[in-house]
Amino acid sequence: MPAIKAINHVAVVVDDMDKSLAFWRDALGIELHELRDVPAEQSQVAFLPLAGAEVELVMPTTDDSGIAKYLAKRGPGMHHLCLEVDDIEGMMNELKARNIRLINEEPRTAADGKKYAFVHPESTGGVLVELYQI
Amino acid sequence: MPAIKAINHVAVVVDDMDKSLAFWRDALGIELHELRDVPAEQSQVAFLPLAGAEVELVMPTTDDSGIAKYLAKRGPGMHHLCLEVDDIEGMMNELKARNIRLINEEPRTAADGKKYAFVHPESTGGVLVELYQI
Repeated sequence: MPAIKAINHVAVVVDDMDKSLAFWRDALGIELHELRDVPAEQSQVAFLPLAGAEVELVMPTTDDSGIAKYLAKRGPGMHHLCLEVDDIEGMMNELKARNIRLINEEPRTAADGKKYAFVHPESTGGVLVELYQI
Repeated sequence: MPAIKAINHVAVVVDDMDKSLAFWRDALGIELHELRDVPAEQSQVAFLPLAGAEVELVMPTTDDSGIAKYLAKRGPGMHHLCLEVDDIEGMMNELKARNIRLINEEPRTAADGKKYAFVHPESTGGVLVELYQI
């Protein structure tokens, strides 16, 4: 059986990276590991690792990406919950067999070769869930 | 300096516990550690621990609690992010000194004696952040 191992990260969509870092990095004191432009996602992403799981702040850098539209519609806040899985294909087959609605029918491959896929909030109790094979 | 140690849990507000458990427990296979009525919070809470951090599903059991109103207004989804802190009073003083808006001016004490407090989403980039001293 494929198994969920851990929370990998919680992604927060933000509209002002400097202001958000003033809270997460400066006030809470969480170390900013990296601030990276991710052109493929039309976003700038701040990685703030904690023991076990990470907070990621994602700021759209264009107006017409999916995440930019989400921000315009819903405002800043938690965007998705990423769960580590040991066998993403197995898990996706399991979810399909239960009629769980997936956003990606097949795993996508990130620039670093890792596989991920999103589950639709309709099937999760309103949470955009990312599955991530590490 | 007070320090954030880890993500303790991600709380998800749900409108149908059975349907939500069909995803989180049955489809994803995360073990349900406990399903508990929490009258003080007018909620039923499902605890689904993973390595390091936990997913908590929170279903209002009355219509007039804060979380019931949140659910009615925003629908189901991620509700708050709980961060472990080693010195909650120190952290709250630090936040106050930076004009971070707190929901609780002083830490509250849970039934088990542990201290917690909430930070207003206005100051965090839209996330209701709970500080929790373990």
